Order: sequence, then C-alpha cells, then structure tokens
Amino acid sequence: MSQPGAKPKSAITPTRAEDYPEWYLQVIRAAELAENSPVRGCMVIKPWGYALWENIQRDLDALFKETGHVNAYFPLFIPVSYIRKEAAHVDGFAKECAVVTHSRLEAGPDGKLVPGGELEEPLIVRPTSETIIGETYAKWVQSYRDLPILINQWANVVRWEMRTRLFLRTAEFLWQEGHTVHATEAEAVEETHRMLEVYADFAENYMAMPVIKGRKTEGERFPGAVDTLCIESMMQDRKALQAGTSHHLGQNFAKSCNIQFQDALGVQQFAHTTSWGVSTRLIGGMIMTHSDDDGFVAPPRLAPQHVVICPIYKDEVGKADILAYCQSLQKELSAQRFHDRKVVVTVDNRDIRGGDKAWGWIKKGVPLRVEVGPRDFAAGSVFVARRDTGEKAGVPRVEFVATLVQRLQAIQDNLLARAKAHRAANTRVIDTWDELKAYFTAKNPERPEVHGGFALCHWNGSKEVERRLKEELKVTIRCIPLDAKDEPGKCVVTSEPSPRRVVMAKAY
Amino acid sequence: MSQPGAKPKSAITPTRAEDYPEWYLQVIRAAELAENSPVRGCMVIKPWGYALWENIQRDLDALFKETGHVNAYFPLFIPVSYIRKEAAHVDGFAKECAVVTHSRLEAGPDGKLVPGGELEEPLIVRPTSETIIGETYAKWVQSYRDLPILINQWANVVRWEMRTRLFLRTAEFLWQEGHTVHATEAEAVEETHRMLEVYADFAENYMAMPVIKGRKTEGERFPGAVDTLCIESMMQDRKALQAGTSHHLGQNFAKSCNIQFQDALGVQQFAHTTSWGVSTRLIGGMIMTHSDDDGFVAPPRLAPQHVVICPIYKDEVGKADILAYCQSLQKELSAQRFHDRKVVVTVDNRDIRGGDKAWGWIKKGVPLRVEVGPRDFAAGSVFVARRDTGEKAGVPRVEFVATLVQRLQAIQDNLLARAKAHRAANTRVIDTWDELKAYFTAKNPERPEVHGGFALCHWNGSKEVERRLKEELKVTIRCIPLDAKDEPGKCVVTSEPSPRRVVMAKAY
Repeated sequence: MSQPGAKPKSAITPTRAEDYPEWYLQVIRAAELAENSPVRGCMVIKPWGYALWENIQRDLDALFKETGHVNAYFPLFIPVSYIRKEAAHVDGFAKECAVVTHSRLEAGPDGKLVPGGELEEPLIVRPTSETIIGETYAKWVQSYRDLPILINQWANVVRWEMRTRLFLRTAEFLWQEGHTVHATEAEAVEETHRMLEVYADFAENYMAMPVIKGRKTEGERFPGAVDTLCIESMMQDRKALQAGTSHHLGQNFAKSCNIQFQDALGVQQFAHTTSWGVSTRLIGGMIMTHSDDDGFVAPPRLAPQHVVICPIYKDEVGKADILAYCQSLQKELSAQRFHDRKVVVTVDNRDIRGGDKAWGWIKKGVPLRVEVGPRDFAAGSVFVARRDTGEKAGVPRVEFVATLVQRLQAIQDNLLARAKAHRAANTRVIDTWDELKAYFTAKNPERPEVHGGFALCHWNGSKEVERRLKEELKVTIRCIPLDAKDEPGKCVVTSEPSPRRVVMAKAY
Repeated sequence: MSQPGAKPKSAITPTRAEDYPEWYLQVIRAAELAENSPVRGCMVIKPWGYALWENIQRDLDALFKETGHVNAYFPLFIPVSYIRKEAAHVDGFAKECAVVTHSRLEAGPDGKLVPGGELEEPLIVRPTSETIIGETYAKWVQSYRDLPILINQWANVVRWEMRTRLFLRTAEFLWQEGHTVHATEAEAVEETHRMLEVYADFAENYMAMPVIKGRKTEGERFPGAVDTLCIESMMQDRKALQAGTSHHLGQNFAKSCNIQFQDALGVQQFAHTTSWGVSTRLIGGMIMTHSDDDGFVAPPRLAPQHVVICPIYKDEVGKADILAYCQSLQKELSAQRFHDRKVVVTVDNRDIRGGDKAWGWIKKGVPLRVEVGPRDFAAGSVFVARRDTGEKAGVPRVEFVATLVQRLQAIQDNLLARAKAHRAANTRVIDTWDELKAYFTAKNPERPEVHGGFALCHWNGSKEVERRLKEELKVTIRCIPLDAKDEPGKCVVTSEPSPRRVVMAKAY
C-alpha cells in the first residue's frame, strides 16, 4: 500500500502560519493553477485553474439564464471620448488602463519594430464596459416595449494594476459583467438585489464560501454608481475578500450615454441601469477559504475532478487484474451525477512513486483519492482518503459506489461549515476605539501572523472616519450588512450616533 | 389563423439574386445576429448571434475534450520582442495589429484626456498566440515526459483589418486556438490531421455545411507554418469560405521560442508544434450556406431555439384555454433532447400582429414554428411550419410531440443535402484557360450576379500561376484536396505537368 509515507510537516512550504501570502502562491504553484506570465501583471491560467473557471462559468451562466438573462459580446476597445462622459467613472478608471495608440508595427530607423499608423483617437482596452455597452443600448432602446434589457457578457478586462497577485489582482482578468436597462428605478433596484442573491447563492452553495451581503459606503462605491451591493467573505488569514458586486447605476450612465425611451404615456424618459460582475478573483477566494498546509482543497461542486483512482501493484502479475478493477470502478463512478454534473473520475496509472503520486493529487485538491492494491482487490474493497479531513479508510467497493454522492456532499457541507465556523470565531462586536485598535494591531499569540478579523462596529456615516480607519489601522468598512438590524449606538471612532453596525476589516 | 398573409416578394430586401453582399447584411440585421459597433471594425454580437456562438463553443469544446485536449488561458498582450522572433510570422501580422503604448490617460494641456505613462516596450494585442504561448511552453517543457501538451484557448483576438464585414472579417473576433507540442514530427502531423477531421466533422454534422478538406499552397500558408490544412466551403454565391485551419508548425516556433526537451536517450531536441483554430467566422458561413430570401435558417443542432409556439386567439374567452394548451405542449417538447441538448421551446405570447410575429421568427431562422388557434385547440392538433422548406401542415398534437426529434433531424439532413447539391451543381472540372476564364468572368444568365464556383484544375505548383490567377481572375487556389486522386495532367495556365487537380475559386 503506497500510502503517503512519513508525513512531512506539510506538503506546502511555508505553512499558513509561517507566511500566509507566500503560502497562497505556493498552493497555486503546487496545484498548477496559474503562473505569472512574461507580460507584466498578466497571468497564465493553467489547465487545472482554468477548469475551475469553466465550472464557475457553467454554473453561474445557468443561474443567470434562470433569472432571465442572455449573453452577448461587445467590443474590447473603448474610444477615449466615451469613457470621459461619466465624470466619476473616468476618475475611477483612467489612471490605470491600457491605451492603444497605433494600428501596426513598422521597421524603425535601426531596423527595430516600432509603432506605426497612429490612430486619430486613442482607444482604451475595456476596464469594464458600462460606457461602450451604454452607447449601444442607447440605439436599441426607443420605447418602454424594448425594456428591460437583461444581458450578460463573459469577457477579459484590463486594469493596469501596479501590485499584482495571481487571481486576486492582475492586469488582465476574466470576468462576467451583466448590464441591464429598466424602465423604473424600482425594477433596477430589484435587479441589483436579485443578482446579489445569485452571487451569494453561488458563493455559499457552489464555492462553499460563506458571504455577508451588504452595501458599500459612498466612498467604496463603483465609480458612477448610485448604490453598490457586495458579497464579502473572510479568508483564513481573517482578511476580507470582496467576491462580487452588483451596482445600481441609477440614471447616471443612461444620461451620459443617452439611453432614453418613450414610456406608455408617450413621455420621453431616461432609463435606469445596473451592472454586476464576478471575476477569476473567485478562484483566489476559493483557494484562500479551503486550502490547507498540504495544498489546494477543491469544493466538490466546482472540482475539475471528483475522484482519482490510483492502482497499486508490485508486479506484472497483479497489474492486469488491478487495472481492470480500477477501470470498472471508474466506469461505475463516472456514470453518476453530482448536482447535475457528471462525476469526473480518472485512473492515474503513471509509473511514478506511489507517495509522489498521492501527494500530487493532495496538492491539487481532488476531493476523494482512492487506492486499490492487491489486498483491496482480493477483498473487493477500496482504500479511500478524503481530502478535506484527511480521513482514510478501507471501504467495501459496493458501499463506496453507493455512497459516492453522499461522500461528495459531505465534503461540500463540511467545507462550508468549517468556513462559517472560522468566520464566527473571528468576528467580534467592538464598541471602543481602544479595543478596535488592539484587535487590528495586537499580535495574536496563538497565530502571530494574523490578528483581527471582522469587527462589527458602529459608524457615524462619515468619510472622515473611514479615512482614519484606513490610515491608522489599514482597515476599511467592508459593507453595511443588508440584514443588519436597527440598533442605535455610538460610532466606535467619534462616539457620534449610529443607526446600526457595519463590518470593518482589513481586506484584499 | 394568422398565417403570414399575402407573401411579399421576400422578407429580406434585397434578395440574394439582387445583391448578395447586401442580402447577407440584411439577414444579419433582420435576425438580430450582430451589428457594427461605434468602434471601427469591431462588432457587437447580439444575443441571438451569441447564442449560436455559445452552441458552437459547447459542441466544439466537447469534441476537443474527447480528443484529449484541455483549456487554459494566456495573456491578451504580446511584447513586440516576442512577435519579431519568427520572421515569417512577424511579416504576416505586424502590418495590422493594435499596439498598446501607454498605461493611463491623463489630462492634457487643454483638459482633454491624453495617453500617459508610456511603456518601455510596446505590447500588441494578440492577433494569434503562437509566440506568447510558445514562450510559456518553453518553460513547461523539459523532458519527453512533459509531452505532448494538448491545450486549447477560447479567446478574443485583434487584427486591424481595413475592410471589415460582420462575422467574416472584423478587427476583433472570437475564436479558439489550439496549441500543441509533440516529441516527434509524426505526432505533430497526426495532430494536425486529427483536428482538421474534428473541424470537418463539426462543419458537416453540426453546421450542416459541407467542406473540402485540403492543404494550402505554400503562398497561402499560415505565417510560420510548415504545412496548413484547411476546410473550404462553398457559399450560396459560389464563393469559397475558409472555415477552419490546422497548422503543422514543424520546429519553427519551437526554435524561435526555444521549446526543447530531453528525449528518452538524454538528447536535447527541439519539439514539434501545431496550432489550429476556428472563429466567429463560422457564423458567417452558416448564414451564407443556409439562409434564404426570407432570412436566416438555423441548423437545428446549433439553433438558439428549436421551436416557437404562437398562440392565436380572437377573444379573452378562448385565450386561457389556448395558452394552457400551448404551455403544456411546450413542456412536452422541452422534455425531449436533440443530440444531447435539451430542446429549446418558447411560447410567444406577445401582443403583436400575428403576421409580424410569424415573420419575426422566420427571419430569425427557428427550425419549427407552431401555431395553435381555436380550431387546433378543438381538434387537439397543431399547425406546423418548417423553416427550411416552408412546408406547412396541421398535425395531431400527439403525433407532433412524438415526431419532434425526427422532424429536427430531417431539417438538419435537408440543409446538408441541399448545400451538398448546390456545391455539386457548381463544381466543374476545367482543363483550359479559356474555359477557366469564361467560368470566372462570364455572367450566368440565370443568376447574373453570380458566376463561377469551384473549378477543379491542374496546376504546375508555381507561385507565378497563383499570382496570375489572382490578378486576372481574382481567383485563388483554395486547397489541394487531401483526397485528390493522383491524376497526371497539364496545368490549366501553363500546360506544364501536374500530378493532381486543385480547387480554384473566388473566396471570402
């Protein structure tokens, strides 16, 4: 039986406790999820990481379609004249964007290739598409009968970030951006909330990543939005990750792009628009929520592969029998479905050391690892290792086949429960500045690398307090939870009145 | 019964006979497939057109995976230094590409936004990704054990085309590009052929678009390839459309990108690579192969929607009954599968004129249109119109439900047969220059707008003949068919010896 031999301290070096940011990068490396590309700030999403994105896309896309949306595709380039129309928007995105100025390369004086064919008007590579899509919608919308428009786009976008980090912040990333147009404010607000619910459902029930649904403060809103809703999740280092946003854009973009319609009474009106998006950042969130010191842990609903079967034989004599046993097992398992997706099972028959093989799959986060050796073959059993808990046990083959779906669901449930417990353990109601300061600056003796978490505090609603939190504690107001109950209190910084608590945290 | 009333000459103006290029654009417009965007050369793919692309993606992706490929994602940008490494490649793509030179916009002297933050090295927006992917592969490949690499990417690419045409030639388009690395030339050649077969299978059996599998002449090869295989299809105006290409790149890119591996004997070797791609151009091919003077005709396997049910009632009394009848019919039809895809059925209950409604769906190309009026309701029947042939007939409801899949398959088969017959009728064996010239220049009295077709001719293998064909007849050698039988003959231009016939045609 080639169980992983003497267990090293951990398969990933450093561990979370030793150096969380570096651990994150090493998990990505060990699982072959992505790597930095030679192009500054852009990543290569490797097949195992891209398979996660394909699964995210497929499931989210189904949820979008269930809520009445269709997909379309709009241009990669935005004329500078469009982007500048919405003042807040241009402020938000002009500072870091890729600008296309030429339409060819030509031989320069020294034979080097240099840009040629200068464009009359520079184009920027879309950092987000409100403006280019808005200009198009303005042509499509004439009458209230043309509304609502409920369109989503799967696309790449570029923001020239200076400090990049695989999946969390890259110059180019993949995302979806929904852009909808409505006749009334009420409908637009309803849409904004509907899509936030879709994101929350997806985060919790597919990614096993619990989230707080909330509203951003004015200072943290999307540039050009009237209201930004978000889902915020806690990573294992207790920092917050904004995992998705849904914006009520009011009539701001309708006015800058001139999206007008004639209502049922014949009156010309500006429309109300929304936009909402999630990106490959979700993969970063998934990694930081579930992975451990042995590598990535994939939630079964999104795992590229659910089960790997490793045949173990000592000689050629047993080989044929054991391989046949593994292949028929693969067939029985693959015939099953887990949440409307075919269970993906491979047999790893590579000729490498059993320990290396096992650790390889552990680091890749496959939910269930099955080993079949001569004794299992003789007994009609399988040896099953569960990735999330590390539990290992011999199980009659028939029983394993019959309980596969339950086992996968148990892992999915455990990951969510574990993440919820982690968040609960690291969320504190705090009422004084001293305590808040200690919470975010004092070292935690048990895990010196981390401190703080989510602080539920009163806030006077001012930008000045937000500025002070940021400067003195590197903390931001992540959101005003949508389900926050009315609870009059005093601002944790100024002691001024506050109607309810908000979530404060350090964030990615 | 709101059948389309007195049939106008055609739903699309102009007809194919009147002005084929303009007919093509009007079909796209009427079916709401795409439109030109405000950004020069870029198109907006509208929901109905994008649904076609989604179906193409899903089915092709499954075929790629069945042949052992996985997906990944590489950067949008390519440093100029990379693209120039392969000499033929840079010649092919440098002349029309989007060049990013700056990383932000800043306020200029007159307050206008101008490019700022000039990059040290300009980047081009990928026109194709051999170079950037090759540079990455060079790091991944060390040993023969790392081979083969079988990766595909779904992406957008940009080529700064001057004359654009929706779907057929746009500055930005969507495509897939496979990039594989192999230890031996034989394996790379095998891969090139394997993927050509996948494309041919897809074109014929999914798109119902017959293709000729062939090899490009040296002059028509992909820049940097050793061999380019292609599938060529005939459009209704008898012009050829190159619908997909599969390139054997030999060791050209392996050398320029330095993809080396140690073989089993410990010897360092350059790898052999391939690339292959199809794009949103396929949608243009589908439109031009099947559509008629009444609009788009979607092949059922890729149709965004298979059936539309239009309830027809005169008063509120019958309305509820007829609607319920339609909805239960929708349910029965939607429960079925056509080629592993759920049958998509909608009930169109919009309050618009019946004739407008029917013509709307005809122009959108939905394979089966069902109308249910009071008499159908009373008789337990449906009135079914078939898009490809225009046939209309009352059918017992039970029978329609039971024969749905056969009906869709009959349409699929008919479209392919029709396209094959069209190609056969417009393919000619030609042995003299006079006949060739007449074929491609003489007007066809029956359809004055078109002439020519596919000419099967002998060719001496020279570029000079290709040049003359292009200059004098605007004709190119589309391909040397892979199944061309050895048939010694004389070049149609020079009378020099030729080993087999090639396909000559005007082309998109």
